[in-house]
Amino acid sequence: MEIENNNERDDEFYSNSNYHSNQELYPIGINSPFENLSEELSLKVGDRKFLFICSPLAINGPISRSGLLLKTTKWVSQVTGEISPFLDKFQRETKEKNIEKNQEIFDNLLFEQEIIFQNEMNWAKYLGIYYILLPTPIFVGDEWRVINMNYARMISNSITKINCDCSIQIPLVENLGNETKTDENRAYSTWCLIRDACNSNPHLSVALELTGSRVSESFIEKWMIEPVKYLVLPFGIFSKNKKSKPFLKKELEEIVLKFMVHNTHLIIKIGNNDVRNLDKKLIEEEALNRFHYLQYLTTKLPTLSRDEKIDLEYSNDLQLPLQPLMDNLESEIYEVFEEDTTKYSQYEEAIYQALLDFKSQVDKVFVIMVVGAGRGPLVQNAINASQRASCKTSIYAIEKNPQAVITLQNRKWKGEQSVKVIHTDMRKWNPPEKADIIVSELLGSFGDNELSPECLDGAQNLLTENGISIPCKYTSYLVPISSTTLWSQINNKSTTKSFETPYVVKLSRYIELSTPQECFEFIHPIPKSKIREDNKHNWKYKSLTFDLKPGFDLHGFAGYFKAFLYGNVTLSTNPSDKTIGMFSWFPIFFPLKTPIKNSSFISTDFWRVGSSNRIWYEWTVSSPVSLPIHNPNGRSTWIGL
Amino acid sequence: MEIENNNERDDEFYSNSNYHSNQELYPIGINSPFENLSEELSLKVGDRKFLFICSPLAINGPISRSGLLLKTTKWVSQVTGEISPFLDKFQRETKEKNIEKNQEIFDNLLFEQEIIFQNEMNWAKYLGIYYILLPTPIFVGDEWRVINMNYARMISNSITKINCDCSIQIPLVENLGNETKTDENRAYSTWCLIRDACNSNPHLSVALELTGSRVSESFIEKWMIEPVKYLVLPFGIFSKNKKSKPFLKKELEEIVLKFMVHNTHLIIKIGNNDVRNLDKKLIEEEALNRFHYLQYLTTKLPTLSRDEKIDLEYSNDLQLPLQPLMDNLESEIYEVFEEDTTKYSQYEEAIYQALLDFKSQVDKVFVIMVVGAGRGPLVQNAINASQRASCKTSIYAIEKNPQAVITLQNRKWKGEQSVKVIHTDMRKWNPPEKADIIVSELLGSFGDNELSPECLDGAQNLLTENGISIPCKYTSYLVPISSTTLWSQINNKSTTKSFETPYVVKLSRYIELSTPQECFEFIHPIPKSKIREDNKHNWKYKSLTFDLKPGFDLHGFAGYFKAFLYGNVTLSTNPSDKTIGMFSWFPIFFPLKTPIKNSSFISTDFWRVGSSNRIWYEWTVSSPVSLPIHNPNGRSTWIGL
Repeated sequence: MEIENNNERDDEFYSNSNYHSNQELYPIGINSPFENLSEELSLKVGDRKFLFICSPLAINGPISRSGLLLKTTKWVSQVTGEISPFLDKFQRETKEKNIEKNQEIFDNLLFEQEIIFQNEMNWAKYLGIYYILLPTPIFVGDEWRVINMNYARMISNSITKINCDCSIQIPLVENLGNETKTDENRAYSTWCLIRDACNSNPHLSVALELTGSRVSESFIEKWMIEPVKYLVLPFGIFSKNKKSKPFLKKELEEIVLKFMVHNTHLIIKIGNNDVRNLDKKLIEEEALNRFHYLQYLTTKLPTLSRDEKIDLEYSNDLQLPLQPLMDNLESEIYEVFEEDTTKYSQYEEAIYQALLDFKSQVDKVFVIMVVGAGRGPLVQNAINASQRASCKTSIYAIEKNPQAVITLQNRKWKGEQSVKVIHTDMRKWNPPEKADIIVSELLGSFGDNELSPECLDGAQNLLTENGISIPCKYTSYLVPISSTTLWSQINNKSTTKSFETPYVVKLSRYIELSTPQECFEFIHPIPKSKIREDNKHNWKYKSLTFDLKPGFDLHGFAGYFKAFLYGNVTLSTNPSDKTIGMFSWFPIFFPLKTPIKNSSFISTDFWRVGSSNRIWYEWTVSSPVSLPIHNPNGRSTWIGL
Repeated sequence: MEIENNNERDDEFYSNSNYHSNQELYPIGINSPFENLSEELSLKVGDRKFLFICSPLAINGPISRSGLLLKTTKWVSQVTGEISPFLDKFQRETKEKNIEKNQEIFDNLLFEQEIIFQNEMNWAKYLGIYYILLPTPIFVGDEWRVINMNYARMISNSITKINCDCSIQIPLVENLGNETKTDENRAYSTWCLIRDACNSNPHLSVALELTGSRVSESFIEKWMIEPVKYLVLPFGIFSKNKKSKPFLKKELEEIVLKFMVHNTHLIIKIGNNDVRNLDKKLIEEEALNRFHYLQYLTTKLPTLSRDEKIDLEYSNDLQLPLQPLMDNLESEIYEVFEEDTTKYSQYEEAIYQALLDFKSQVDKVFVIMVVGAGRGPLVQNAINASQRASCKTSIYAIEKNPQAVITLQNRKWKGEQSVKVIHTDMRKWNPPEKADIIVSELLGSFGDNELSPECLDGAQNLLTENGISIPCKYTSYLVPISSTTLWSQINNKSTTKSFETPYVVKLSRYIELSTPQECFEFIHPIPKSKIREDNKHNWKYKSLTFDLKPGFDLHGFAGYFKAFLYGNVTLSTNPSDKTIGMFSWFPIFFPLKTPIKNSSFISTDFWRVGSSNRIWYEWTVSSPVSLPIHNPNGRSTWIGL
């Protein structure tokens, strides 16, 4: 009955609010300061309001609850369990008993706390609660470091034993009570300590509680690369406008928006003081007002294109690069890439300009060969460019994938030009006539990482003496980055291979620590004299030194590329001059086995080397500390020739 | 024929020399500057002279050799293959061609060198040569770092691919030619760079070449913890005495002796200049003189006791601690430990003094229970002490290992006292009378690590109200150490478990970076009120901060213990007050997953925790950097209760 009543009242609020009611709700939870759980759950009202409720797990504490209150499916999906603030209790006891200096009694109390912690964790596990909120560490007193280290051990033990997802509550700025504030930020550094102690376990995250204190932008930047799963908004942090509706002051709103971009879940936190000062109905009303305000904030988020929304889904997903030379791609993959109209219009422009430059040769029929034609997008570009340039062209589509060849053979081309489809490996074909232009799209996220150099060297035989290649040049770029979230995923696999793999990844929650620098460069066609039978002319070694933005750990290197198609027509994934609207390539990420802590510079070494049938990368850091060479002999990852 | 001739002449030298000809020869090798290999091997003369010969592998260089020269068994056992100094050649070429700035030509030359290197490595593999000497890195020129990093990559590749043992030739002090000497030691830091790049592979070691330059003792200390497999002694480094016999000046001799303590193989190196300046017979003669002098040096090495010689064999051998509670020991293990007369005389003294103190109680028969009696050494100590103190005693031998019980039951005791042998677990026995003294030897390398606290807590039931335990107290100690050789062995296993294991190890090639500090302390008997059913009173947590000796990497912690048996009678493995002559315990070593580089201090956290049937240690470093907690939940190692 009460639920229905609430429903009506909520709907009123809902329709009054400023956010678009027909869009998807932003994920927001709320904590439960009341004793009767089913009553609290009334705040949730199905899927239309709060996504989840945070409920204390304490079974021996003041709030005691029966597991029968809810069905298991609800415990799992809608309840985040809160471990009681046992560390505070422990600190009070050590203070009262003045036993900080007695190791034996201190140990006893320490391990007593562990029993409380384990009991609550076991209770959560029994109920089937998967999401856990852990209490805030200690920031004051003589023993705060020791208490936190022991707390870290408890978390480390639980997280390696119990299947759960723990978020530790950390205030944005810690309350140091009467203690003198030092330069360090204890809350942030304590999180780093606990994170490292727990071996960057990806099941450990942060519930970051907003505090009123002013913080610098660079400090927020530090938190942006950490796994902040929840942003906690205390009731009292909201201001009220003239109509008595809650809102956040500009500085706080900006912080909240920064996290909302990454889909960080929000928690509205009703404090014990709020429960004491306000009656229950008022609290519910106020909670919903805050909820509506936060939903309204979604209108201030940057509007994403359809492609960007798709990209978002892949945020920090680690993918292995394609092996289009060794494997045959599937139709769906071609389909996705063919949708990148920006990229193909650049190709068309490049072919068009090349034909214009060739055009002085009157009446000549220009031979264009699309090598690695796939399902034919570049072939259509070549046809379009020929028509725009009013050139006669003879167009070949060369493709090794027998399935794609079937598509090519049956395809109707716009402009009705006939296309000669050749099923062969571009490196082995002996053509009836030579090409003026070969066009290819063999680049990977790191430029040469899908073996474009080797393929195009092989395809040079198809080219006339003055023929050109589109692209004619490409350069890879590297930049050191910091991303705790990314590194912890890789570390969690805990295999040598996981750190010796370059990943294709849509980077998010990361920060570039320097300016990208050029790594490897390839030019096509190259003088025949430089081509070596053993392919060693395509082996490269680059040693780069970067100055680093201070205050961050280095986790690895992001790789980009820039390709010159023809003249000034380029494709670039390097953020400094990225081709706008192009989405075919995510960056590549070369991880480091050991993060480099807080260094002011870094020297790194990258190799592109191989054997008779493989190419691979090796990389390391040689200064100021030296790391093992990653992927020696291509033992973990390689690309098949 | 020639071989026999040499034989005669060598024998003459041999008998003339000053070293004890009937002792085992110290391992010394020699390089081969001549073109005819079988002639060179004549220097070896079976097992009585040089242990091995260093021979160039170059097949395209000036010295070309046929694989038929020797039988495979000789290639494997007596020849160390030398890779030609291709880096020098490379550097000359880059300088001559003045192409340091042209990346493409530089890359080409770089990878040309790799072909030379790989050809020689493959040639060695084909011949079956296992030991390889690698050329000296480059220390001068604009590109020395880059050349060395690429060299490191070649080594890293070979060592992960080919089954061989590579020693890189490094001069003690590098020759910088005309370059200004900076503060850094390029030779040492280049070795560290290559070692780290090769992931501290234990198949990579150093052939350290003595140079005439003066070096500080602390610099030699740095080399002592590195895997120096060979010490190379150039011909010209020797001085001559009045009889024209070669010797080393005091400073050089001291360095050589330091390495000889660790059985580092010596190589007498005949240089190209020597070959040019001296005739062959003279060189052979001089080489043998040097050989004899070096053999003579063995007389200056510290004389080792039989036990110390046995210990030496276990140098840096990583052993897992015993589990005497969970497993039943074998007779051989008892036998080894029973030979430690120092330890047992301390026990006898402790029992004796305890009996003297008890003796005021006239005419009382004192009950002594040896808990965990094994094959009975402590029982004999108790009998001896009783007789010395002229006390009447009733002696029990309690043992859970059924095999050891058979030995106990059949043993004849010196002093003909009768002993009551009880086959039971000391924690479960209900005795007919209570003991005045319980005596035990349950300590491990880290004191409590074989579960002495848990066993003796259980055995407290056997004790009268004022009864005593021998030992009555024990404390473990920790000290941060540096040992590249030890760490690389553990790293080579490349499993999580290998770094989460405390090893029992006879430490050598290590250095303590600070003074040992107390870790955990246990007292017996403890007040009954303190004993907890769940054993949590034996859980411990210690946070320690150490100042560190500068200039070394921290690889882990050595653990020792000190036990108070009775009164002032102690057993200690802590180097600062070690019980002289006692050999039952090697130190324990707690490794760190990631070495801490060159820090001035360290905070570490150690826990002794458990579950209902296990005890384990967890440890980490929390400052200045934080590491993962090692062995969470005892997932890798534990001791069974």
